[in-house]
Order: sequence, then structure tokens, then C-alpha cells
Amino acid sequence: MQDRTIWWEEGGVGLIEQTLLPEEYREVVCADVPRLVLAIRRLEVRGAPALGVAGAYGVALACKNALEGHEGDFYRSVEGAAALLRSARPTAVNLAWGVDRVLSVVLTESDPAKVAARALAIAEQIADEDEETCRRIGSYGAELLPDECTVLTHCNAGALACAAWGTALGVIRSAVEEKKIVRVISCETRPLLQGSRLTAWELSRDGIPVTTIIDSEAAYLMQKKEIDCVIVGADRICTDGVFNKIGTYMHAVVAAYHQIPFYVAAPRSTFDPLHTMADIIVEERGREEIASLFGRTTLPDAVPVKNYAFDGTPLSLVTAIITEEGLIRAPFDHPWLMP
Amino acid sequence: MQDRTIWWEEGGVGLIEQTLLPEEYREVVCADVPRLVLAIRRLEVRGAPALGVAGAYGVALACKNALEGHEGDFYRSVEGAAALLRSARPTAVNLAWGVDRVLSVVLTESDPAKVAARALAIAEQIADEDEETCRRIGSYGAELLPDECTVLTHCNAGALACAAWGTALGVIRSAVEEKKIVRVISCETRPLLQGSRLTAWELSRDGIPVTTIIDSEAAYLMQKKEIDCVIVGADRICTDGVFNKIGTYMHAVVAAYHQIPFYVAAPRSTFDPLHTMADIIVEERGREEIASLFGRTTLPDAVPVKNYAFDGTPLSLVTAIITEEGLIRAPFDHPWLMP
Repeated sequence: MQDRTIWWEEGGVGLIEQTLLPEEYREVVCADVPRLVLAIRRLEVRGAPALGVAGAYGVALACKNALEGHEGDFYRSVEGAAALLRSARPTAVNLAWGVDRVLSVVLTESDPAKVAARALAIAEQIADEDEETCRRIGSYGAELLPDECTVLTHCNAGALACAAWGTALGVIRSAVEEKKIVRVISCETRPLLQGSRLTAWELSRDGIPVTTIIDSEAAYLMQKKEIDCVIVGADRICTDGVFNKIGTYMHAVVAAYHQIPFYVAAPRSTFDPLHTMADIIVEERGREEIASLFGRTTLPDAVPVKNYAFDGTPLSLVTAIITEEGLIRAPFDHPWLMP
Repeated sequence: MQDRTIWWEEGGVGLIEQTLLPEEYREVVCADVPRLVLAIRRLEVRGAPALGVAGAYGVALACKNALEGHEGDFYRSVEGAAALLRSARPTAVNLAWGVDRVLSVVLTESDPAKVAARALAIAEQIADEDEETCRRIGSYGAELLPDECTVLTHCNAGALACAAWGTALGVIRSAVEEKKIVRVISCETRPLLQGSRLTAWELSRDGIPVTTIIDSEAAYLMQKKEIDCVIVGADRICTDGVFNKIGTYMHAVVAAYHQIPFYVAAPRSTFDPLHTMADIIVEERGREEIASLFGRTTLPDAVPVKNYAFDGTPLSLVTAIITEEGLIRAPFDHPWLMP
């Protein structure tokens, strides 16, 4: 089993095929950019920081293939692949960030072989940094947790959403490493169940106590005083709010109602100081994610769905953003949130 | 296709097998009380008012079978069946109400044949009353809706949850009958998807526009000002709060946050003036409802779940309770809410 969720190997970009978990652990190697884009669209790899690494490795892969294939078209080929990668999913900002960070190298070198080597080196560096960044987020976040507590999380902001360690789950892992007693309530996260399939899988493998609930049960557990805080990841942090998996906003509202701290754990690459929430296109995904389950129809044919993949939570509902450089709190006048 | 969700026929108590919808419409006849209790436990029939009718027919069925079988044990047999019915599900108060309303007849008659005939007559009367009650609830509730609106509902408080017409969906049906333009957002209602399987099925058969969403998306649609009010049913209304399908409390909190009216539609048989919320046992259902879907594992074996079937919403979050006698509003000092 790999140390990381996404990695480079001789044949291309390797990743854990997350749609099959927990029933099956399978590694996949994407030999070209179209296959990697498909993996991103199908959510074989997902999670904002992991998408940043995927974008970076994707450009390195485009360079490698362009070099081996048609050397004459090298730059056009790499730029085309970069555009394809960037548009694979619209909401998480890290994907474009990872693509552009590697692509900027391509544009400053003239020798394709050198470009390919440097692109890969930078992609590897981004993956290494991601793990280091998560550990620093974890360390800052762990200070927020009491010595014994129950943390609610939504979706998967764990090792599977990053290169390793995780953001929201990184905070929990770091607290456990510091000998704190942390119990986790993992919301299953409809429609694609990343909370039960991935978060519960990750945490139970680490021996961290985790209980799964349906998403709509969180408010009731808060009423019963069974939740001490909420920690989630983020797909994009704008100047006035946080985009994350659909359901996050609901948790933020009910946490505020119950006066429970609501934390967002995310690296700098998730910040988008050039946009407000109103500017962002929220990805709408297909009807079949809600209308059928494993091939069984759960909704009459004639009935439409509205399937937003993300929602936006205004910063006024966020107690703190946990970053690799420390905490950002109200009034949220931090430079990363300024245009 | 039957006019009603549950009915009496020669072979016993007939019902629509709701766990198979929308893929298959199948009618089932329960020939004895143990089969009816199984149908209640398995949610082949569910919904508080429908459970009241099921309880009533169940006692009539026990009388019929006791009469045909071992006449000597008539009373003991009927009382045993009544106890079995009453305990089939603990949270909805209507089940016990339906059982006891028919049982009280059994205890005042001495001729078993007469008892059986009267038990059936009363059960039929309860079923008829249920439809009439729903139409009155619908009529009072329809006055609350603007001429054009979008209503969010959770779970199924429709014809399938009653003998016919419905409580929350009865309000919507009555408003449509009065030529109002009503669009419905139906939350799918995990874990058993009564919102997508049943509510969407019912409404689309009636030609009422319905869109299905995952439960956790409701708050985001409220943020986007796409919801005008919330209407749900109830399983038990205590002196200080409303028990209904898990997720209802979440909707009440987020509706209050967005200043959206939150209505509960329920008949008198749902009121329990002898208890407060703290007294009520909330049914916890099995792990498999969350850990697997149509035979596929969605949660690692080692991970437990917490699967409350209902939650409690304090009356402070309820804008009005819509009953067959009119609206009950703050300060909720109505006689039905008084011990």
C-alpha cells in the first residue's frame, strides 16, 4: 500500500482509486493527461489539496509524453494539456494553482528535456510540501482541541484528499499524536458518501474512534451536546466565504445555533483573494448521483434533481481558519483574504 | 391501483409495499398480526397517521382471527396482538392511539362476534376520518401559502403516510386544488430515502412539480432564497416539541436562521400532551441502513453508526402547527398541548 494518495511512477501518475473504497483498494496509473482528467472528473482522486498535486503531476506528465511523442509540438501540447486539466473541475482552486505553478516553469525554459525534468521536480516538491503543510496545519489545529473531545467532520479532508496526513483529519491526527483523546463523528456525505467510504476508512485504519451518521443527524447530536466542535476542509476560500462540499453550510449554521466552534482547515493554496463568493461557479453534478444507487432506481424517471457539489459558508459563521501559518480569525483581515 | 395506502379486504389488511417504490408498485395482504407487525417494522407501511390506521385494522384483524381460530382465548389473543402492535415502533404515538381506540371496544362487549364486527367498523371509521382530517389540515394549511411558492418538505408526509391525501403534502395538494402554483423541493431523506422514493413518486403522479435534493443541500437553497417555507409532518407532538423524521430539527434550525416559516402539519392523534420531549424514547435503527446500500458495503466493517430514526424540534422553532381544527401558534398554550 502506498504512503501517499497520489504519486509519480514510471508509467505516469499513480493514485488510489477512491470510488471503489471501502470495498476494494486499487491503485491506478494514469499514463496520459486525458486519463488523469477522467480520474479527476470521476472523483477517483478528489479533495482540494490532492487536486493541486494532481494538477502539478499532470503537467509533468504532459511534458514527459510530449517529449517522447512529437517534439515539435511540445509547448502547444503541454499548454493544451494544462488547459484540459485546469477545467476538469471548476470549483476547487487548488487544481488550477497546481497546474499553473508547474506550467510557469515550462514557459521560462527553452529545452523540452530540461523543462520535463524541472516540471517533474517541481511537482514532486509540491507533493512533499503538501504533506509538510498538512502537518503544520495539524499542529496549529491540535492546539484548539481540548484534551478529550468529539469532533464532527463532513466529507473527506483527510490523507485521501491530500498527498498525505490531511487537513481537517490532519488536525485530528496531530491531536491524537499529542495524546489527546479524540472521537470523530463522520457525516456520510451524500450523494457520494466520502464521509463513510473514505473518512471512516482512513480513521479506522489509524485506530482513531469514528462513528458514522447521516448528514441530517448532525444538528440533533449537537442538541444532545454530543459534539464539541466541527472541523472541515475547503475547496476555495474567497474574501468573504468558504466553498466546501455541499452540506458544509448547513453544519456551519447549526453549529452557530448551538454555539459550537466551526473550524476550516486549509492550506494557502486554497485561498482565492481575487474573488468573492458571488463570483464562483458552483459545479452541478449529474442527476444519477441522486436518482440511483449502485444501479437501483431511487427516484421516479420524471423527477429532476438539483445537485450542487459545493456550498458557500460566509466567514461570519467560521470560528477560525487553520492554515500552515497559523489561525485566521474574525475580523478576517489577513493578507491572504485581501485582493 | 388502490385509492388508499392501507385498507381492509377479505384476506386481512392490505397495504402498498412502500419499500419497493418507485421501482415496483406491489400490494401486500397481511393475513395475521405478526405479518402486519413485520410490515410496520420493515417500513412496508410507515407514516404516523397510516400507523394509526394500521394499528386500528390490526386489532380488527386480531379479532377476526381469534374468532375464526380459538374462540376460548378470544380476549387474551386480542390483547396479546394489541400489545405486539403497540410495540412495533416506539416513537410515533398514532400507532398506540389507533390500537387503543379499537381495543377499548373489545373491552366493553361480551360477544366475540359482535366485538369483531364493531372493531372492524371502528377501524374503517378511523381510516375514513383520517382522509377527512387530512383534507381539513390541507385546507387550513393552504391559506398559509402565497399564490406562487416553493415549499421544502422532508421525508414523506403524504398520502402514503396516511390513509390518503396526506398531511404536509395534503397542504400542498389543497393549495394546488385552490389553483395556487406550488413547486416542491423534496429532501431525499436518508437513510431510507422516503423523500425521493415516496414523496417524489406521489407528487409526480399528481402532476405537482417536484425536485429532489440531498438533505444537506436545503440550507444552501435557503441561502440562495429559493425556498419560501418548510412543511413537514410529525410522529409525536409533545408539550414542548415535535418528533419527526431525523433531519427535521436541522431544517427547523436553518429555516429560523433564514427567517423562513417552518410549519408542522399533523392531526390531533399525533398530539401527546402527557409527555415532554425528554420523556420520549427515540427509536434507533440498525447499522445496515447506513452501512450498506442495495447489498453494497459503504462503510468499513469496524465502524459503528448512530442511527436515530427521529429527532426532536422545540416548539420555539415552529411557526405554526396545522391541524384539522386550525392553526396552533406561539405561545402554544392550546389544550391539546396541555397535560
